[in-house]
This record gives sequence, structure tokens and C-alpha cells, in this order.
Amino acid sequence: MQRQKGVALWRQISDRIRANILAGLYDRTGMVPAETALAEEFGVNRHTVRAALAALAQEGIVRAAQGRGTMITQRDKFDFPIGRRTRFTEGIGEQARELKGILLSSSREVATPELSDRLQLARGEEVLRLDGIRKADGRAVSRSTMWFPSERFAGIDKAFAETGSITRALSACGVEDYLRDVTEISAVHAEPDDVAHLELTPGAIVLVTRAVNTDPQGCPIQFAVTRFPADRVQFTIRN
Amino acid sequence: MQRQKGVALWRQISDRIRANILAGLYDRTGMVPAETALAEEFGVNRHTVRAALAALAQEGIVRAAQGRGTMITQRDKFDFPIGRRTRFTEGIGEQARELKGILLSSSREVATPELSDRLQLARGEEVLRLDGIRKADGRAVSRSTMWFPSERFAGIDKAFAETGSITRALSACGVEDYLRDVTEISAVHAEPDDVAHLELTPGAIVLVTRAVNTDPQGCPIQFAVTRFPADRVQFTIRN
Repeated sequence: MQRQKGVALWRQISDRIRANILAGLYDRTGMVPAETALAEEFGVNRHTVRAALAALAQEGIVRAAQGRGTMITQRDKFDFPIGRRTRFTEGIGEQARELKGILLSSSREVATPELSDRLQLARGEEVLRLDGIRKADGRAVSRSTMWFPSERFAGIDKAFAETGSITRALSACGVEDYLRDVTEISAVHAEPDDVAHLELTPGAIVLVTRAVNTDPQGCPIQFAVTRFPADRVQFTIRN
Repeated sequence: MQRQKGVALWRQISDRIRANILAGLYDRTGMVPAETALAEEFGVNRHTVRAALAALAQEGIVRAAQGRGTMITQRDKFDFPIGRRTRFTEGIGEQARELKGILLSSSREVATPELSDRLQLARGEEVLRLDGIRKADGRAVSRSTMWFPSERFAGIDKAFAETGSITRALSACGVEDYLRDVTEISAVHAEPDDVAHLELTPGAIVLVTRAVNTDPQGCPIQFAVTRFPADRVQFTIRN
């Protein structure tokens, strides 16, 4: 195995095993090969293999089956439903044990023409910009830049930082319900910021959504550009 | 510019110019740089640049503006709407001058467990498999493998070959209307077949949809896996 500098060896091994699981290499048995076989395959010792498997168990991808080896418990991607009511927490919901939204930064900006258009703001109005990532079972599953009309959503950055949830942060700003108006989906190669925040390798694919949420009266309240690692997330649209 | 073997030079140049247009490099002027500037930039002669620009004009991306150079007429991707009524021809509709569905091959297969499940067929039932591509203004915009229950849709391969439209082919089989039930969206790197049929370069990104259509009574009539070049197509979901 070609080793990367600056990345712990156990992590490189766990990345390789995870990729093999996602590629379906172990589908026939539903088990990861024995530790000794993995140690030989990757040219590392068994302690390193054990650390790698422990990390994958932590992620909920494998589970030690007493006396039988290591079972694959989740080889599928997270499935993110997109519909009239699109919610990150409900959407990923039962597929993960722990979900977390983390605020990276927030700032005030004058709305660009595109933002004014998306949020139906007058020219020159201010927007509050939040940059954040979301993790499911410790794995980064998305990275978002979100814009809200400043005046109506003063304090939403703090509310998101505290609750880790946009639904709860909107509720703290008096918006008890919201609806997805439009979602555009494209795919690009990972940018350096994706590599860093989404823990990807260069050349990886990122699914990008550009979405507008409105309040129940149809007034736009949020425009978000969200980037998902294509090897961890897929979208489902049910009509 | 690094040249590729086995790909005509003018095509390599047109790919580069198209990528620059899509990346917004010429957005400020809305014009492609002068032929002499492009010839110098890519280290080729003006004949090659002219052939590349002619190909892009053919695609509807640029237009020669008499005496003023080459205007960018379309820098956006095709926008493919996904909803309860998803239709290729209506969907790409006004964005292209010419749309064409081409049947590459058809065959009879015994349904795999996944297909039986998706199409609600009994174990061992036969399906008709169609492989085809779709072109918009001469550019490949998708490549599909579609499965239909054999008995109900006998002859749909010929109807698709003749009409170039699934909507019309279904109609020829007595299905006057159909609805999109579910669409899963993911993204992967291009496979060799994508490179060939979608005229992509290796490493390019392909958006993949896995979709079920039903008749108006809710009975599944088609399962399709469709691959779209991510640099030419994006999806829009309106709720």
C-alpha cells in the first residue's frame, strides 16, 4: 500500500477498508477479512489493523462479532431525502446514532444579485452568512454555506451554534415550520476546502445542492449551498 | 497544453474552451478570446482553433458575431427537472434545438432480485432491457439502461428506436401517461463506457439516477439507471 505522509497509518487503513466495503468487495460474506489477512494485505501489524477496525466500528460501519470476526453493519451511503419538507436531522434520522451540526463561522454580508434574487431582498440589503458542517456518527457528511435575511434572523448564528440544528435555530427565530421550495443538484470535484472539512482525498466527488427554503407563507428565509461527499451520501426524491 | 493521444486536436481545444466557458472565465466580456489569442494560448494554429469554435457553435454554446469575434450564447448546463411528471423531452425542452433518443441495444433478461423488487415482478419473470443514449443539439447528455416488464411492453424497443422518445414508445404500448415514483441520485467517476458514449475524458464526473416510473394506477412500468455528464447537466427539484 502506498502510504501518505501526515496521515496516521491506522486512518489510512480504515479509509481503505471503508472504500472496499462501499465498493462491495466483501458483499459475498458480509464480513471484513480476518485481521491477519488485512495485516498482510496492507503490510502493517495487527495493532494497526485493530485500530482501523475500531475506528470503523466507531463510525457504525462494522461490528465485532464475538469469535466470528468483523461484520459489516452498514455498507450503504446515507440516504438524504429531498422533498417539500427537507430536514437534515429527520432525513438522516434513523441511519445514524449521532448527528451534529457545527458552526464554523458567521458574518454579515451585503446580498449579491443572486442572493437578492433567491431571497427576494431589495438591492443592498444585508444577509447573515453561516458556514457549517454536519457530522453523522463522527463522519463529515456535508458542508454548508447558508444565507438568511439579517433583520428577521438576527441571532440565528448563535442559535445554530448552540443547538446544532437549523430547524431548531429557525424555531428560536420564530419560524416554527419551513418548506423546501427549490433544490438544484450538481456534482463537482472536491475543492481544497472540501478535502479539509469533509475529510476527502483530492479528486473525490462532491454532490452540490443549491436550495431555497421558505416560511409557510412562501417567503424565502434561507438560501444554502451544501456540499456532500458523493461516496457517503446519496439523495432520494419521492413523488 | 498537454495533448492526449487518440483525440483530435480540435476536439481537445473545444473541450478546453467549453470548460473555460462553464467555469465562467469569459463571463466579464461574454466573448471567447480572439482566435489569435486562443491559438497562442493552446500552442496550435488558427485552423485548429476555428475547427474547435465551429464545433462549439454546432453545440449552440457560441456564435460568430460578424466582425466582433465569438459570442458565448449558452454557458449554462442543461437543467433537467425531476418531479412527479419527469419527461426527458419536455424537461430539456426549450433549452435545446434538437433532442434525440438513440437505441444502442435491447435484450431479454430474467429479472434480478433488485429488478423484481423495483418492478414488483414475480421471481424469474422476464424483462426487456434497452440501452440508449440521448443527445441534445448533437451533444450526448445521458446514457440509460432501462428495464420494462417483457410481456406488457413487447415491442417497446422498436417503438423507442423509431420515435426516439420513451414517452411515445410507452404510448405505443398503450401507456398514455406515467408518473415518477422515486429517484435516487448519486455521483461517480466516469466508467470506460461513459467516456465512450458520453464523449467524456477519464476522471470526469457522472451524475447517476436510479428511477422508477409507474402507470397512473401506481403499477411500476420502468426502472432506469441513467448517467449524465455532470459538466453538461444539473437537476432541479421544485416542490
